[in-house]
Amino acid sequence: MKIIDIIEKKKQGNALNEEEIRFFINGVTEGTIEDYQTSALLMAIYFQGMNTDEITYLTKYMAESGETLNLEDISKDVTDKHSTGGVGDKITIIMLPILAAAGVYSAKLSGRGLGHTGGTIDKLESIPGFRTDLSIEEFKSKVKEHKAAIAAQTLSLAPADGKLYALRDVTSTVDIIPLIASSVVSKKIASGANHIILDVKYGSGAFIKTAEDAEKLSQIMVETGKRLGRNISAVISSMNEPLGRAVGNSIEIIEVMEFLKGNKENDLKEITYTLCREALKKNGKVKSKEESDNYIDELISSGKALEKFREIIKSQNGDERITENYNLLPQAKIKYEVKSVKSGYITNIDALNIAKACKNLGAGREKKTDSIDYSAGIYLNKRTSERIQAGETLATIYTNKQSAIKEAEELILSAVQTGSEPPKTRPLVYKVIN
Amino acid sequence: MKIIDIIEKKKQGNALNEEEIRFFINGVTEGTIEDYQTSALLMAIYFQGMNTDEITYLTKYMAESGETLNLEDISKDVTDKHSTGGVGDKITIIMLPILAAAGVYSAKLSGRGLGHTGGTIDKLESIPGFRTDLSIEEFKSKVKEHKAAIAAQTLSLAPADGKLYALRDVTSTVDIIPLIASSVVSKKIASGANHIILDVKYGSGAFIKTAEDAEKLSQIMVETGKRLGRNISAVISSMNEPLGRAVGNSIEIIEVMEFLKGNKENDLKEITYTLCREALKKNGKVKSKEESDNYIDELISSGKALEKFREIIKSQNGDERITENYNLLPQAKIKYEVKSVKSGYITNIDALNIAKACKNLGAGREKKTDSIDYSAGIYLNKRTSERIQAGETLATIYTNKQSAIKEAEELILSAVQTGSEPPKTRPLVYKVIN
Repeated sequence: MKIIDIIEKKKQGNALNEEEIRFFINGVTEGTIEDYQTSALLMAIYFQGMNTDEITYLTKYMAESGETLNLEDISKDVTDKHSTGGVGDKITIIMLPILAAAGVYSAKLSGRGLGHTGGTIDKLESIPGFRTDLSIEEFKSKVKEHKAAIAAQTLSLAPADGKLYALRDVTSTVDIIPLIASSVVSKKIASGANHIILDVKYGSGAFIKTAEDAEKLSQIMVETGKRLGRNISAVISSMNEPLGRAVGNSIEIIEVMEFLKGNKENDLKEITYTLCREALKKNGKVKSKEESDNYIDELISSGKALEKFREIIKSQNGDERITENYNLLPQAKIKYEVKSVKSGYITNIDALNIAKACKNLGAGREKKTDSIDYSAGIYLNKRTSERIQAGETLATIYTNKQSAIKEAEELILSAVQTGSEPPKTRPLVYKVIN
Repeated sequence: MKIIDIIEKKKQGNALNEEEIRFFINGVTEGTIEDYQTSALLMAIYFQGMNTDEITYLTKYMAESGETLNLEDISKDVTDKHSTGGVGDKITIIMLPILAAAGVYSAKLSGRGLGHTGGTIDKLESIPGFRTDLSIEEFKSKVKEHKAAIAAQTLSLAPADGKLYALRDVTSTVDIIPLIASSVVSKKIASGANHIILDVKYGSGAFIKTAEDAEKLSQIMVETGKRLGRNISAVISSMNEPLGRAVGNSIEIIEVMEFLKGNKENDLKEITYTLCREALKKNGKVKSKEESDNYIDELISSGKALEKFREIIKSQNGDERITENYNLLPQAKIKYEVKSVKSGYITNIDALNIAKACKNLGAGREKKTDSIDYSAGIYLNKRTSERIQAGETLATIYTNKQSAIKEAEELILSAVQTGSEPPKTRPLVYKVIN
């Protein structure tokens, strides 16, 4: 078998068979296929697409390209949740204690943030002492004991995906739905959970821009996951505005705790409740939306979810006293209030601009090796649909970089649109695919 | 400027501007653009195409990527001829003496053969003593003195083309008309002649398979050449069968000499006369087809063309006595007659199979570093439209490799189709674009 024949076949619009896809993924993993041949094939896939069989084989062999986790000794039912990435997305950290309090085993391996979206691992590491560098044995035993654990992905899971992604990033072949689908699902397959909940985002703050593309991607991911034997759902939601009021690291942890104490921002609630419902259903805990909503309400109002969060923090060596004393979290030296220059109803807050401002303040990293200022971030004092007067505080900047404030302020002001009437509100969740 | 933005722009179907194409070609030449990025762009060009402006810029900057020849000190009118490659294609070697005898300056730089088609340089080097490694000064002074010279392309002409071609060859991006066009024309532009005659072939023995594609390619090459200030024509002809009866190296030289002595195979005559007419017209020597045909007839019947061939051979240190004594050319030890197993009219002889057989007999090379057996080849005793009886000699194999005969015989027999009626004959020349 020769890679050039595989490139030609895809170029001509033909479907690749299992043998050809295995040959390709093995060649990428082992380095026996040249990058310039891989990138030519990736571009041909952009134009000719892949059918569900091809995507399934691609996902399977990418999942098998490295180490794989076996979680069956924890339970026959383990749940994993994955977000395609959004601004202010702290939902994994809210969900885990809720699900664990409901008796659902949740095993979450997560990456660090790169680019404009923060990583769940970074947010958790802003909790003093919190360890994410768990060995596989530690990770599994914590899931077993506390029903939930979250660790940085240090294993070589689906290394073919890592190699392909690095190449896609520099050859303008990132936005290819079959490749996005196989990238996401292969890592979930390798991570070992049998129940998979995908949080698929579209909009200005996500790398998928339209609901249609998000739906296409979700359908492919769900179909692929099912064919590979997993119980998988995708919740599609818009990501045009930041999720919640806090964007950063430690300030997002505060928002998580507020949520678990019952102070739920509407958008966070809508998405968290939908995602949790899918997980609770898969684990046989609830049957209907009403039952699920009531159950989650009760887990929060009773304090069980917050107590579970304290348990998870403690189990991973973090200082669980933060739930009672937010000052134990990293504090920014500078708190700067951005005042509105306009009056009216806020009609939109652009997620991408807020994310860029946050990164400049120190909350994100450009390169993998950059360090992060956990205390940096932006808190939105006013959100879409709320009224604001010129001179009122629109947002609060948290940073240790005086020099970054001016540009961040400009970005925030340019991110906010106002109008004379409140905007029509629409549900955030567009569709659930399962 | 970033190459990834250029890839994305082409991927989206937009035309690249002059700056972007210059950046790309400079990057390829200097090695500052990674091969995996170049191959992604090439594949995007396969799907999105290029307009005439883009192809012209591509050709221009490829032509300027290395050394360029200035032939104006020879004459303001110098003619160059190029074939896209065919089996048994000895037409350059027939044309040069005819044109030179007509007083047309012909300067031909040529490559060696690779793959199944033999190279003009290889064929000429089968003449004992014939030097093709001329310095630029020698080349130009010979063109000035004898009106014609032919040299191996040792100069670094259009090195960007060489680099792109090497990559296209291994990434299944050879068959892209804008890239074929710019590859051919850029080398002709760099070679310096102001009159350019292109011999564009299509069919089973050519790398372009259909007349439509050949016409599209020809129109683009002629338009590009004109925009870059050259007087350029393309003659499109079919290449389903070998040209002439001889395929190899020294046996093709014999067929050239026979032609110049007046024994003209019909197909060689049709294409040679058409190509020469274009060159003679460009140089103001003839106006009509009739005038041109008569003029060429006279140059051959008078012996002037053959005498010019002797002069060219002598000027390049070759043994010009071969024109009178074919035994001075390399002789194969084995002459093996392939007998027909069928009776009837020959309806087709597949060029590609004959070429493969020839290469196996030693007449071609697989890798650049392979050596060639100049004496090896195949002579077609019978051609399409001729009658053959089972047991009659169909073709003669010339080789020094006893072991290669059996497979060559099978390839020849499988190349020949017969029928009960002679096939309809059609003109070889499909169209002239100028």
